[in-house]
Parts: sequence; C-alpha cells; structure tokens
Amino acid sequence: MPQSDVRPAGDGRPLITDPFASRWLERPGHVTVVEPRLPDGFRAATRAAGIKPSGRPDLALLVCDSEHAVSALRQTRSSAAAAPVLLNREQCVAEAISGALINSGNANAGTGEQGYADAIALRGAAAEALGLDPSHIAVFSTGIIGKRLDPAPLFDPITTLAGELTHESAADVATAIVTTDRAPKLLTAEVELDGGTVLVSAQAKGAGMISPSFATMLCFIQTDALISPETASLLLGATVRRSFERISVDGQLSTNDAVLLMASGSSGVEVLAESADELRLGEALDAILRSLALEIVADGEGAARVGRVIVEGGDDEIVEHVAREVAGSPLVKAALHGGDPNWGRVLGAVGMALPDRPRMPIDIEIEGTLVCSAGEAVEHDEKDLAESVSGVEVEYLIRLPGSGSACEVFFSDLSHEYVTINSEYTT
Amino acid sequence: MPQSDVRPAGDGRPLITDPFASRWLERPGHVTVVEPRLPDGFRAATRAAGIKPSGRPDLALLVCDSEHAVSALRQTRSSAAAAPVLLNREQCVAEAISGALINSGNANAGTGEQGYADAIALRGAAAEALGLDPSHIAVFSTGIIGKRLDPAPLFDPITTLAGELTHESAADVATAIVTTDRAPKLLTAEVELDGGTVLVSAQAKGAGMISPSFATMLCFIQTDALISPETASLLLGATVRRSFERISVDGQLSTNDAVLLMASGSSGVEVLAESADELRLGEALDAILRSLALEIVADGEGAARVGRVIVEGGDDEIVEHVAREVAGSPLVKAALHGGDPNWGRVLGAVGMALPDRPRMPIDIEIEGTLVCSAGEAVEHDEKDLAESVSGVEVEYLIRLPGSGSACEVFFSDLSHEYVTINSEYTT
Repeated sequence: MPQSDVRPAGDGRPLITDPFASRWLERPGHVTVVEPRLPDGFRAATRAAGIKPSGRPDLALLVCDSEHAVSALRQTRSSAAAAPVLLNREQCVAEAISGALINSGNANAGTGEQGYADAIALRGAAAEALGLDPSHIAVFSTGIIGKRLDPAPLFDPITTLAGELTHESAADVATAIVTTDRAPKLLTAEVELDGGTVLVSAQAKGAGMISPSFATMLCFIQTDALISPETASLLLGATVRRSFERISVDGQLSTNDAVLLMASGSSGVEVLAESADELRLGEALDAILRSLALEIVADGEGAARVGRVIVEGGDDEIVEHVAREVAGSPLVKAALHGGDPNWGRVLGAVGMALPDRPRMPIDIEIEGTLVCSAGEAVEHDEKDLAESVSGVEVEYLIRLPGSGSACEVFFSDLSHEYVTINSEYTT
Repeated sequence: MPQSDVRPAGDGRPLITDPFASRWLERPGHVTVVEPRLPDGFRAATRAAGIKPSGRPDLALLVCDSEHAVSALRQTRSSAAAAPVLLNREQCVAEAISGALINSGNANAGTGEQGYADAIALRGAAAEALGLDPSHIAVFSTGIIGKRLDPAPLFDPITTLAGELTHESAADVATAIVTTDRAPKLLTAEVELDGGTVLVSAQAKGAGMISPSFATMLCFIQTDALISPETASLLLGATVRRSFERISVDGQLSTNDAVLLMASGSSGVEVLAESADELRLGEALDAILRSLALEIVADGEGAARVGRVIVEGGDDEIVEHVAREVAGSPLVKAALHGGDPNWGRVLGAVGMALPDRPRMPIDIEIEGTLVCSAGEAVEHDEKDLAESVSGVEVEYLIRLPGSGSACEVFFSDLSHEYVTINSEYTT
C-alpha cells in the first residue's frame, strides 16, 4: 500500500518550542513570537479527506478575503514538476492568489495529462466553493509520486471546507500539510513597523527530498501588511534565498516544492517600496523563514544533528558551489551523524567540488578549531575537538583563496533512520 | 585511534569467484581467466609495515624489469589531491613508469608540503632499493586523510621488499592495497591476439568514496604485450571511461584515485597502433576493467545490491549528467536497498538533473517493465515489479527526448551499514 505518512504526523505542537533557540538564528527586536493564528483577512479550514491511508488530516483550504490581496509564488525548478506546479505556473495569476488548496498524501506528480486535468478539476471545485475565479486559486500537493490523485472523492470535502473557514486555523493548516514530518512547523509573529504593527504567519512542511538548490518543501506565509505585488515578490525572493535555498537534507530537488506569500492589507499598515518599513518587514520575514528552514533541517528524515557550513572566498558562485557540495556529501553527513571530527571528509568534498585545479590552499575550522591550514593538517587536541562536535549543532568554516564572498548552507546528518524511511517508502 | 581497515581485509580470495557472472558483463571469446599471476617482466612483493593499526599488509612494491617498459597513468581530478598524486603529476615520467610503491592505511592527503616531502622521501627509498631513477617511480597511497605518513619507519621495509620481489605475487598486491574492501579484487587473463598470446593482470581496490566522475580507487594493470606509450594511453583512457568512470558508490571523488597501466613487452607480441590486435587487446582490457569496476560497486561500503541505470536521449552530455544524478540519488539508492520499485524517486532525480526546463516526456522502465511513459504513470502489475527488483541486480532504463546518445552508470544501494562504516571511520 502506498503511504506517505509513515512517521507519526505529530500532535499539532511544533517540534521546536523556541523558534529562535539555535545560536544560528537571531530574532530582530521588532519581532515578537505569538500564539499561532492567521492575520486579519485570512481564514482556513482543514480535514481528513481520505488521501492519507492513515486517516489523518490531508486537505487544507486557505483563503484571503481582502480585495487588496496580493501574492508572490516560488516553485520548484524540476523538469519533472508535478501537475499542480505546472498548473500554477501556466494558468495562475501569481501576484493575486487569494485561495490555496493544499493536499498531502499524494503529490500528483508523474501523472501526466491526467494529473493536469485532475489538478484543474480540484482547482475548479475550490473556485466554485469560494466563488472565486480559478485563475486566482493555486493548488499544492505533496506525498507519493506516480499515483493518480482522483479528484471526485474530494469535491464534497472541498465544499465542506469552504463553509468551515476560520481565523484560528493556522496550526491546523500546518498539521494537514505534513507527510514524513515528525511535527508540524509553524510560526506566528507580530512585527512592529513605523506605520504600526502587522502580523506574519507561516506554516511549512518538509523533511525528506530537501535540496539546497530549492528546498523540497511547502511553505505558506500570510501577512496583513498592505504591500504591492512587487514588494511581495522582492521580499519573498530575497528571504527564500537565505532560508529554504540554503538547506539540505539529501540534496534532492522535489517535483512539488512551493512557497506562497499572501498579503491581505487588512491591517491598513502600508509598506512602501524602498521604505524603512519594507526593510523591517523583510528582516522579520527573513528571521521567520530561516527559523522554519532550520526546523526542516532538524526534522530531516532520521536527522539527529544539524551542521552549518560556511565557505568564504573570492567568488560568489564558487563559495556557493563548495558549500552545497560539502553539505550534500554523504561522507560529511555520516561523520556528522557519528560525532566524528573527520575533517578529511570535508577536504575531500572541497577537492571534488573544484576539480581540475592546481593545489588549493584550503583552511578548515570545525567549531572554531583550525584543523587544516593551507591544505595541511594542523596539530590540535583531538579529544577537545571530538567533544566539541558531540552537540546537536556543528559548525564548519572553510576558507578558499580570495575574499569578499561567503555562503552558508545548513544540513542534516545521514542516519540509519534515513535509510529505513527511504527504503520502505512505498512498500 | 585512526584506522582505515575497519572491515576485515579479506583472506586473499576474490569476493566474486566468476568475474563475468553478472549479466551486464561479457567475456570476449579471446579472453580466458587464469590463476592470478603477474605477466612476464613484472615482479612484486608486499608486507605489513605497521601503517595499518591492524597489522595487516599495507605496503607493496611493483616493478617492471623490462627495458621496453611503457606505462599510462590516470589520476584524480580533485583539487585536494593527495601528495603522491601531486608528485606523480609533477615529477614522474608517466609514459615510462617501471616501479610503483603503494601503501594502504594512510592517504598522505591533507598533509601539505610535509606530505609532499614525505612522498619524495618514500619514492627516493624505492628508487635506491631498485636502482632506478626516481622519475620512473610512481607512488600511491590510500587510507585516512590528514595524518602524516612518516617515511622513516618504511625505509627498511622498502629495502626488504626490493629483495623479495616475485612473479607470483599478484594476489598479495591486491591484498596489500585494500582499506575498507571486504575482499581483494584481482583478475588475470590470457588474451589471444593474432600475433600470439599475452597476459593481462589487474589488481584493484575501492569500496567507499567511489565517484562516477572518477571512481575513488586504485587499480594496477600489467601486461607483457609490446605496445607504445601512445597505445597504452589510448587503451587506458578508453577503457577507464567505460569502467571506473561509470560507477558510483556515493558520488564522492577521492583525493587519491589512480589507475596505472604498465606494459613490459616481454611476450614479444607486438601490438601496433590501429591494428586488429590493438582492438582485441582493448576489448580484453575493457572486459577486465568493467569486471573489476562492477566488483567495486558490489563491494560498495555496506552494499547489498547493484543498480545499472541506462539513459538514452539526443545529447551525450545530458544523458551522462542524468545517469550520474540518478545513480547518485540517495533516495534512488535507498529504494534499491529496500527492494522498493519506487520509480517516483527516479523521476524526481531526472527532474532535478535538468532544472528550468518545460515538461519533459520521460519514459522509465524498471527491469523491462514500463512504469512511466512520457512523464505519466503506466498501469503495471505492482507485485510482479516488486518481485523483479528483489534480486541482486536491478536495471533502470530512462528515455529522454531525442536519440543517438546513451550512457550507463553502475551504482550500489544505500544501506544502514554504509552509515555505520562512515560514521565511525576515524573514531
């Protein structure tokens, strides 16, 4: 039997109770975490519609009621993109999405023309139930690939959901979109701007198939700030680049990745382009998405530990490429898992990332201890180093020749549980 | 304690008794497998010199006594290449190598200028013991990265080895070069040419850090055919490309990869450039190296099963890139491990390999069963398919748009044991 919720889907409580507990995260002073709720202008409802064999919640409807609704959307770059991704790309007004229909348990990927027609049918049902034009509704799916997502049994649940929309359902949305996640991932924060206070709410899912190129995950972000579509796109692009595009569980780009930012404007607090408030809202969004991104890494399939690799050098493309290769190396990840300060694995990954070059004078620091200078081993206290990599977070700093460029990538370890989860996924 | 031989180093017998047992290998009619021995003109000796903490054999000296000795060498492209690789590249007459000093247990990588000086010292000791010019001696190391390989304790063993060289030591060489290999890997074959019969002998090692770009491994090949350096280079380049460059255990390029072909000419059977015999010798070398390459995959760290992915399409670069991505996907490898016919993993890997393209009509066959046609799931008997992927070898065929290009990559599964081995490597 296909099943995509092989791990317990959680009890509705976030995995991490303090979303800024990591030393790698900073909560800006003007950002206050509050109890999960949707901002003014948003309502949602969820239910178990029978897509997941477990009978857990698997369908969510999220709506922005405001006439000022604007949005921004980022989706996977995979050439095997799922039907909903293709539909959103081809037939959706991405800057004015006011409804999102999300299902978990079935990705509607590898389903060809049939899947595309099914996605259109699901979108049509949501449009009808909400009284909206279909071009203002986006659809999102996550779960098993290659199985038809039959829309017929979902028409009634969608109609029911449209009648049950509430303001308080942020946690329900987070719960309904999980697949192999150990717990729902969500964060709601008040953001103080010069023009007044706005609310930002975000729900994310993702645990496996997380890629640094574009994290395989879903994330829905709502705010009651009054912003233009241009500002929405700018802020989402910049903050995704520092969060979901900087994490790696297994380096695998998904067919269904998507991040949707919706703004209702209902607070009446207008955030103008290139204003101080735009910067402050961007900082808040940045902090929130980085927290959720790190939560995805920490919840990486089978993950027990999180690494952060920072690569410094003289070329933006090279430092990013090296950071991704190190974060994606199964040898580095297995060493992280074992609490093994095996910096040779890091050196090997850097050398592989940059083939056909003459000798590279590479420096490597692990948790602040210099272990390799200009490509040569440095004497250090091995016991101290082993001790310092035994915690939940381990930091690797790599210096390449040159200066002025830097890139960080967060990654999870490679564990026995990852193998177990992914060798028994469909069967 | 550092140790690089955490797995039993074998009892000297090959892991695979019939080197052409795989359905993916073919033994040409003019190639006959014989008991391991070195061809005329070659001698070798090995011993336990204390590099491996286990006390197992870890030092080998291999010599071509012929005045007609020619050679060809291929080494890793890593920019963090080990000291011996750099020394061979910079100070060795690659087409006329008549001596090889090989150690296991320490890679002499990440050792900077000190490591380079140590490699020179070891080479010098071998040159002196053999009465050869140092520029005709190549050095090879494999094992732990970032630890000094102190040459001083090895000078006496090298001198002793030079006095113990024998013709029958092919199996000893294969045993002395292993690290995490479960068994030595070697093959000796008689090759019938029009001009007479020649012998080809090869010893390989490699189990982890095996990359499809250039398999992280060592392989030493000897023949008594009389060939030019140009023919040696041509044959080695072509056959490595179809063998060690087409395998993946974990996609990790090593700091120490090397393949050395030496020809003594002692058989007196001359193989001229562009002759029928050159082709036949190439076919023999191809069969032998493919057999050893597949043995490396089968002996992949923790590997229980071997996959073969064939990608067809209209562009050489694209089919190779896709084949490598599929072979390197931890999700595909974990599914292979679990005997899980989860072709969605394959589809996802293809989509990731080719980002930012419009819909791709991809066909996927697993063990001859069409599961995806033009990107859309195809009805098939799931029980039959599950049964067909339960064997030791599983074949995946991917058809991209276009025709005329094809690439195959062999890969191992991702197992719990891989994680165990690599999370406990140094500690």
